[in-house]
Amino acid sequence: MSQVTVNESEVDIVIGALHSELTSFMNAWRPFFSRFHLIIVKDPDLKEDLQIPEGFMLDIYTKSDIERVVGSSTAALFSGYSCRYFGYLVSRKKYIVCVDDDCIPARDNMGNVVDAVDQHIFNLKTPATPFFFNTLYDPFCKGADFVRGYPFSLRSGVDCALSCGLWLNMADFDAPTQALKAGQRNTRYVDAVVTIPVRAMMPVSGINMAFDRELVGPALVPALRLAGEGKLRWETVEDIWSGMCVKVICDHLGLGVKSGLPYVYRTERGNAIESLKKEWQGVKLMEDVVPFFQSVRLPQAATTAEACVVEMAKTVKDQLGKVDPIFSRAAEAMEEWVKLWKSVGIVGPRI
Amino acid sequence: MSQVTVNESEVDIVIGALHSELTSFMNAWRPFFSRFHLIIVKDPDLKEDLQIPEGFMLDIYTKSDIERVVGSSTAALFSGYSCRYFGYLVSRKKYIVCVDDDCIPARDNMGNVVDAVDQHIFNLKTPATPFFFNTLYDPFCKGADFVRGYPFSLRSGVDCALSCGLWLNMADFDAPTQALKAGQRNTRYVDAVVTIPVRAMMPVSGINMAFDRELVGPALVPALRLAGEGKLRWETVEDIWSGMCVKVICDHLGLGVKSGLPYVYRTERGNAIESLKKEWQGVKLMEDVVPFFQSVRLPQAATTAEACVVEMAKTVKDQLGKVDPIFSRAAEAMEEWVKLWKSVGIVGPRI
Repeated sequence: MSQVTVNESEVDIVIGALHSELTSFMNAWRPFFSRFHLIIVKDPDLKEDLQIPEGFMLDIYTKSDIERVVGSSTAALFSGYSCRYFGYLVSRKKYIVCVDDDCIPARDNMGNVVDAVDQHIFNLKTPATPFFFNTLYDPFCKGADFVRGYPFSLRSGVDCALSCGLWLNMADFDAPTQALKAGQRNTRYVDAVVTIPVRAMMPVSGINMAFDRELVGPALVPALRLAGEGKLRWETVEDIWSGMCVKVICDHLGLGVKSGLPYVYRTERGNAIESLKKEWQGVKLMEDVVPFFQSVRLPQAATTAEACVVEMAKTVKDQLGKVDPIFSRAAEAMEEWVKLWKSVGIVGPRI
Repeated sequence: MSQVTVNESEVDIVIGALHSELTSFMNAWRPFFSRFHLIIVKDPDLKEDLQIPEGFMLDIYTKSDIERVVGSSTAALFSGYSCRYFGYLVSRKKYIVCVDDDCIPARDNMGNVVDAVDQHIFNLKTPATPFFFNTLYDPFCKGADFVRGYPFSLRSGVDCALSCGLWLNMADFDAPTQALKAGQRNTRYVDAVVTIPVRAMMPVSGINMAFDRELVGPALVPALRLAGEGKLRWETVEDIWSGMCVKVICDHLGLGVKSGLPYVYRTERGNAIESLKKEWQGVKLMEDVVPFFQSVRLPQAATTAEACVVEMAKTVKDQLGKVDPIFSRAAEAMEEWVKLWKSVGIVGPRI
């Protein structure tokens, strides 16, 4: 159907810098990033100075910025992979696009380099269709449409709040899978975007995603931090947790979530077998996390993302708190995050 | 993950012949059909003799066979596109694969001709994962796996009962869409299979599909017949209706439904603008059909597909019967079908 235009003033690209050397990363993305404003948040645990090539419009936030804005007691929320959430907080744009710093642009089946920003914004600006599955995938993609039997009353769709991209080469596996299939690479480029149906849950990966900050910004919350969390994706579940928060809230508010294009090419990093020692906590927690999010329902009175997060935090504390203290801490982090969002995320940072 | 072996003794290919000239159709499919037994059911309204090339193992059923097996009063169930349901009834195989007679094998992105039978049976023999969406699509495809965050307890999946394939060239649009976009062709080959999540509904197309007859055979029911139904796909909704029956029953029985690969190449047939005069009834009915199937729940006591269809027929009569008499007739057809299945579909036809 229709194509969309991407306005630079609507988009912030947020990068969590877990490594100081960003030169090749930034240069690889230059064709697609250079027209947008970038927010680079340096992992507070990273000591070395960031290496960033010239020619970008960007703001860099470091540990001292984080502490100044949120206070030193709250700054711990933003360590490791969670540093990027600080970027969500200080952004003032409608759309946020995030890519991990070990990813570069992918190529499609025709060999063309993929503009991930453009595809994410396309996903967010075109409607989602969570109430009935279209077998030919996204009906708003060029050359596609709704198939026979799709009710006309549902064809206008709903606003899309979250766009989840995928990964070629190194897929986003957990440490056990990665260790077991060390040689496996994802080479399958699936040329599709799907709306995840209402009430269906999925693991949102923070590696390559975008969202509508105005609609669901407060729901992207750095809440579930593993005890031995390290600096490798497969040692973390913070994005899985916040992704399920967003999905439940989208279902409640009548918004959509899409998954599929764009792909990024993910390079190798870390030793999965080493990580196995830590990862089982994350794997184990999913057995409680997933049924919780599948069954949680929000009160009708909660009509904003902030209100939904507050309600969800209460339910997390009540239902999951008794399972493991890590969930009580997640609930507290959610409450803290909403307070931060109200004081910093909406009215502006005190920088 | 693992590949599967396809045993000839497990599969019937059922073709509803709406046209007498099947030579080019059969020859195009010869590489993939010739090792299997075929059931060809001739549309009772078709007068001319069927033209079928040699070299296939097949049984042909005509109007007189249908009347002899089900009785002349019930034979009306099997006219037009619904003739193939007679094939489902008389088959004794575990798996049924169906392709419309205006489709030929498609080519994938590499230019290879697609073995649709093999892919359908692969879909049916590997587990489905309806309880959590895997963002890298079917984890049982070669080179794929479950992504980070996917609960290990859900990774064994459930039995897959229905495999819905797609269409290159002429997609399965309704008459209004087809008339509006007469020049549109589907050229996007999406290399993926997805499990449709539990409680999500989708329009199942009869053009290119396969199912596990032992698990859900009775749920594929020729029930919803439009008043002015013709001999073009976009003038029918019988497959959409039976597809939603199957999906609800799969959700109830803990079975899975997949959509995606394989594609077939669909050739042109018919004039959509002519069909517009009839099609609006089908389009209009979907506005009641979809909410009904989205909300219908089956009693726990219904533990077989037959029992589920009987229960669903009651609810159709109660809830939809008052909306339009066409639904009362659909409910009666469902009851009739289950009786037929019990007398013919299980113990064998009286031929």
